[in-house]
Amino acid sequence: MDDVVIKLRKELKLEDVTLIEGLPGVGNVGKLAVDHLIKTLKPEHFADIYSKHLPPQVLLDEKGVASLVSQKLYHHRNKESDLVFLAGEYQGSTPEGQYELAHALLDFLSKNYGINKIYTLGGYGLGKMLEEPRVLGAASSEDIVNAFKSHGVVFSEGEPSNGIVGASGILLGLGKEFFGIDGGCLMGETSGYIVDAKSARNVLRTLAEIIGIEIDMKELEIRSEETEELLTTLKEAAEQELSSGNEDLRYIG
Amino acid sequence: MDDVVIKLRKELKLEDVTLIEGLPGVGNVGKLAVDHLIKTLKPEHFADIYSKHLPPQVLLDEKGVASLVSQKLYHHRNKESDLVFLAGEYQGSTPEGQYELAHALLDFLSKNYGINKIYTLGGYGLGKMLEEPRVLGAASSEDIVNAFKSHGVVFSEGEPSNGIVGASGILLGLGKEFFGIDGGCLMGETSGYIVDAKSARNVLRTLAEIIGIEIDMKELEIRSEETEELLTTLKEAAEQELSSGNEDLRYIG
Amino acid sequence: MDDVVIKLRKELKLEDVTLIEGLPGVGNVGKLAVDHLIKTLKPEHFADIYSKHLPPQVLLDEKGVASLVSQKLYHHRNKESDLVFLAGEYQGSTPEGQYELAHALLDFLSKNYGINKIYTLGGYGLGKMLEEPRVLGAASSEDIVNAFKSHGVVFSEGEPSNGIVGASGILLGLGKEFFGIDGGCLMGETSGYIVDAKSARNVLRTLAEIIGIEIDMKELEIRSEETEELLTTLKEAAEQELSSGNEDLRYIG
Amino acid sequence: MDDVVIKLRKELKLEDVTLIEGLPGVGNVGKLAVDHLIKTLKPEHFADIYSKHLPPQVLLDEKGVASLVSQKLYHHRNKESDLVFLAGEYQGSTPEGQYELAHALLDFLSKNYGINKIYTLGGYGLGKMLEEPRVLGAASSEDIVNAFKSHGVVFSEGEPSNGIVGASGILLGLGKEFFGIDGGCLMGETSGYIVDAKSARNVLRTLAEIIGIEIDMKELEIRSEETEELLTTLKEAAEQELSSGNEDLRYIG
Repeated sequence: MDDVVIKLRKELKLEDVTLIEGLPGVGNVGKLAVDHLIKTLKPEHFADIYSKHLPPQVLLDEKGVASLVSQKLYHHRNKESDLVFLAGEYQGSTPEGQYELAHALLDFLSKNYGINKIYTLGGYGLGKMLEEPRVLGAASSEDIVNAFKSHGVVFSEGEPSNGIVGASGILLGLGKEFFGIDGGCLMGETSGYIVDAKSARNVLRTLAEIIGIEIDMKELEIRSEETEELLTTLKEAAEQELSSGNEDLRYIG
Repeated sequence: MDDVVIKLRKELKLEDVTLIEGLPGVGNVGKLAVDHLIKTLKPEHFADIYSKHLPPQVLLDEKGVASLVSQKLYHHRNKESDLVFLAGEYQGSTPEGQYELAHALLDFLSKNYGINKIYTLGGYGLGKMLEEPRVLGAASSEDIVNAFKSHGVVFSEGEPSNGIVGASGILLGLGKEFFGIDGGCLMGETSGYIVDAKSARNVLRTLAEIIGIEIDMKELEIRSEETEELLTTLKEAAEQELSSGNEDLRYIG
Repeated sequence: MDDVVIKLRKELKLEDVTLIEGLPGVGNVGKLAVDHLIKTLKPEHFADIYSKHLPPQVLLDEKGVASLVSQKLYHHRNKESDLVFLAGEYQGSTPEGQYELAHALLDFLSKNYGINKIYTLGGYGLGKMLEEPRVLGAASSEDIVNAFKSHGVVFSEGEPSNGIVGASGILLGLGKEFFGIDGGCLMGETSGYIVDAKSARNVLRTLAEIIGIEIDMKELEIRSEETEELLTTLKEAAEQELSSGNEDLRYIG
Repeated sequence: MDDVVIKLRKELKLEDVTLIEGLPGVGNVGKLAVDHLIKTLKPEHFADIYSKHLPPQVLLDEKGVASLVSQKLYHHRNKESDLVFLAGEYQGSTPEGQYELAHALLDFLSKNYGINKIYTLGGYGLGKMLEEPRVLGAASSEDIVNAFKSHGVVFSEGEPSNGIVGASGILLGLGKEFFGIDGGCLMGETSGYIVDAKSARNVLRTLAEIIGIEIDMKELEIRSEETEELLTTLKEAAEQELSSGNEDLRYIG
C-alpha cells in the first residue's frame, strides 16, 4: 500500500494556503491550540490523511463507531487568506514516517492549491514549573523571525538547544528546502509534565495577532485557569515534600 | 521480495465474503474463538499468507515437519453466505507491517471474491479478574452498532479508551476507508493475565447469534470451566496474600 | 541501493546445489560447524553477499585491511553433488532483513545453478549445562525427517517449542514455500551460555553422515574437549555456590 | 519521498575527489577534526544532503533561523587535488539508513566528479583515560595501510576488535566493494567519555601529513589543552574517590 493516502472529503478551491499545524507533542500545547481553533472557528473538515506510518489502530466515538487513525485537514477562510489546520491524535510512528507524512502533505497542498506559509505550534519543555510561560519562536526565514518579534515572540539564542523535533520541525524544514515555503514555529514554554492549556492559550493569542484573526478564547481561558490551579497544587505539594526533606522533587519550582 | 504473498491452496468460487478475524492478542480471546470455529466447523483451508512482516521463523508440527510462519484463510459455507476465517500464530511484526498485511488481505478478498462484512474478535484487557466478562463492541457503521446491540453486545462510552490496536482494529479501519466495507469488533472482557477461554466462549456465542450459525461449544465450555477454576484459584491465593498483608496483589479481585 | 547484492568472485558451473548454512546463533553451534568445514575442506570462496540489512560496518584482518560486512558463499565438490556453504559474522539486522537476505540467496542459487536441498545448522538453547548434547532435527518434508532419523537425529515433539527462528528457519521455510526445495535443520543441544564446540562437533558428525563426506574432525575435537573442561569448571563453581547457599545459580547443572 | 536528496548549492568542476568524512561519533573526534578543517581552510559549502534517514528535525542558528537537519559537503582545492569534506550533526538513524546515505553520496560523487580516495576520521573508544592517545589506522587496501604506516599511524592487530561501525566504516566498505575506491580510516584513541579535542588534534596532524596540507592548528591546540586539563581534573577526582574506597570509578586512570 502507499506510504500516505490523502482522501478528499470535499473539493475546495483554495489559494495561497497558510498551513497551521497542531499535532500532539510536549505538553500537548500545539494540539490544544489547534483543537481550540477547530472548536471555535468551526472550519470545514475537507480531507483525511491515512498512512502506514501512523499507528495501526481505530479510535471510537461516543457511539462506538470506529474510525481509522488519521490526521485531518480543516479549512477556514480568514479575510484574504485560506487557513488550513492540520490536527490529529498521532504524529508519525518513526523518523522515516515523519518525513513521509510531512512530505506527502506539503506535496498535496502545493500541487492542489498552492501554499505560501507554514505555522507550526508546539511546546518547549523546560522540565520545571513556570509562573509565566513565554512564547518562543523559530522560523525558516529572517522575515518571519522579524515578524514574530514584532508580535512579542521571544527569540532566545540556544533555546531550544537541539532545535525542533517532529512534525513542527520537519514541516518547516521540508517546506523551506523542498517546496520553497517560509514558515515559523511558535513554542509555548511548558513544564512538559501536564497538558498545558495556559501555554496553549499564550501560543494561540500570539498566533491570532500574527495572522490577524479574532478567536473566542473563553473556553481555553477556563482550561488555562484550571492548569494554573493544578500547577499551584503541584507546587505546594512539592514545597511540603521539600521542607519534609524529600529531595526527589527538587526540580519542581 | 514482495511485502505480502498470498498463496492459494485451492481455487474457490466465493461471493460476498464475510471475513472473521481471530489472531493472537490480549488473553488470546480472538484466537481461541476462531481456532474453535476451525476445529468444530472444519472449514476448508484454502490460502496461506506469507510476509516479511511476520517473524522470520518456521513452526514445527508433531512429526517435526517445519512450515514457514503464515496466517491462514479458511472457508465455510453458512446458508447464503461465505465465511472466511483469518487465523494464525502471529500478527505483523511492526506498525507498517500490520498495515501491509491487512491491506493485502482485503485487496485479495475484494479483487478475487467480493467481500461485504468484516468481524474481528479480540480481548479487552482490564487488568483485573472478572466474574462475568461481558462482550463489548465497536463497529465502523451505526448499522452494525445497532445490530450488535440487538444481540446484547455492550457499547460503553470510553471503553476501550484508546480504541482498538492491531489486526482487529486495522482490518475494520482499512476495510471502511479503503474498501468501503462495514465491519464490527467483538471484544471479550478479560483480565489479560491468562489465555481466557471463558471470554472467548462469550465472544463466540455472540458471534454465532449475529451471523446465524450453530456451533458445537462443548470443548470451549470445558476449557471455559478450566479458566474459571484457574481464576478462582488465583483469586483465593490473592485474597490469602492480602489478608497476610501483601499489598502488591491488591489489583486481583 | 538494492536490498541485497550478491557479487560473484568466480564464475562456476554448479548443478543441483546442496546449501549448507552456518551463521551465528545460539552457542554459535552452526557457525562453528560451517567454519570448520571451510577450514578443513578448503572450499572455493566464490561469492559475497552484501546488504543494507547487515550491520553498517567493516571488519579488519590481521594487517588492518578493512572489508565490508558480508555473508560468504563457498563451493566444495563432494562426489556427485555441489555443496555450497553459507558463512558469515552476522545474520540480518531485522526480521524484514532476514527475509530479504534468505530470499535473495535462494533466488540467486536457483536461477544460476539449480538447488535441490537445504541443510541449516544451529544450536538449541536449553538454558542449562548438558553432559551429552543430542542433535535434534526438523525438516520441511517427511522424507528428510525420516532420512535424519535413520542417522540418529532426535525428533522430540514440542522441541524446540517455538520452532526455529532466524536464518536456519527462514531458509527452510522460504525454500519450501517459495522455491519448492526440501530441507532440514540440525540443532545441537547447548546451554547457550558459551560458544559450544562440543555441540558443533556432534552436529557436524551427523551432517557428515547424512551427506556422505569425510571430515577431519581433529581441531574441532580439541575445541570440544576445551568446551567440556570449561563446562566442568562452571559446574563445579556452581555447585560450590549452591552448597554455600547462593540460589541464584540453581539453573546451572 | 526519495531516500536521500543531494541539493547542489553551487555547480563545481571537480576531478579526482578525495572525500574526507568527519561525522559525530565516539568522542566526536572525527567531527572535531573536520569542523576544524572547515573553520580554518574556509572551503566552499557546495551541497547539502537531506534524507528521511536523518532525524526529523530542524536546527536553529543564533538568530533563530531554522534549517532542516542535513549533512554538508565542502570543497577545498589543495594543490593538484580536490578535497571534499563531509560534515554534519548526525549520522543515519538506522543501519539501513547508514547504507542509503553512504551509497547515495558515493554515487553522487563518482557520477558527477569522479572520486579516487576516501579518508574517514573517527575515535576509538577505550573506556579509560589516556595520557598520549595514538592514531590507529585501517584501510581498504594494503597500499594505504603502508602509506598510513609511513606517517606513523599505528596498526594494532585486533584493534578495534569489532572493526569500524557507522559512517567511517561503511564509506570505506561501500567505496571499495561498490565503487572500486580505496580508502583509509584514522582513529584517534579516546576515552569516549568526553568530546576529545586532543585526540582530534592528533588525527588531524596525521591527516595533514598524509594529504600534504598546511593547517593552522592553533584553535584546536587550545581546545586540546582544555581537554587535557579536563582529563587531569577527572583523573584526580577519580583517584580521590579511589583512595576513599569508592570502587565504582576504578576504570578511570
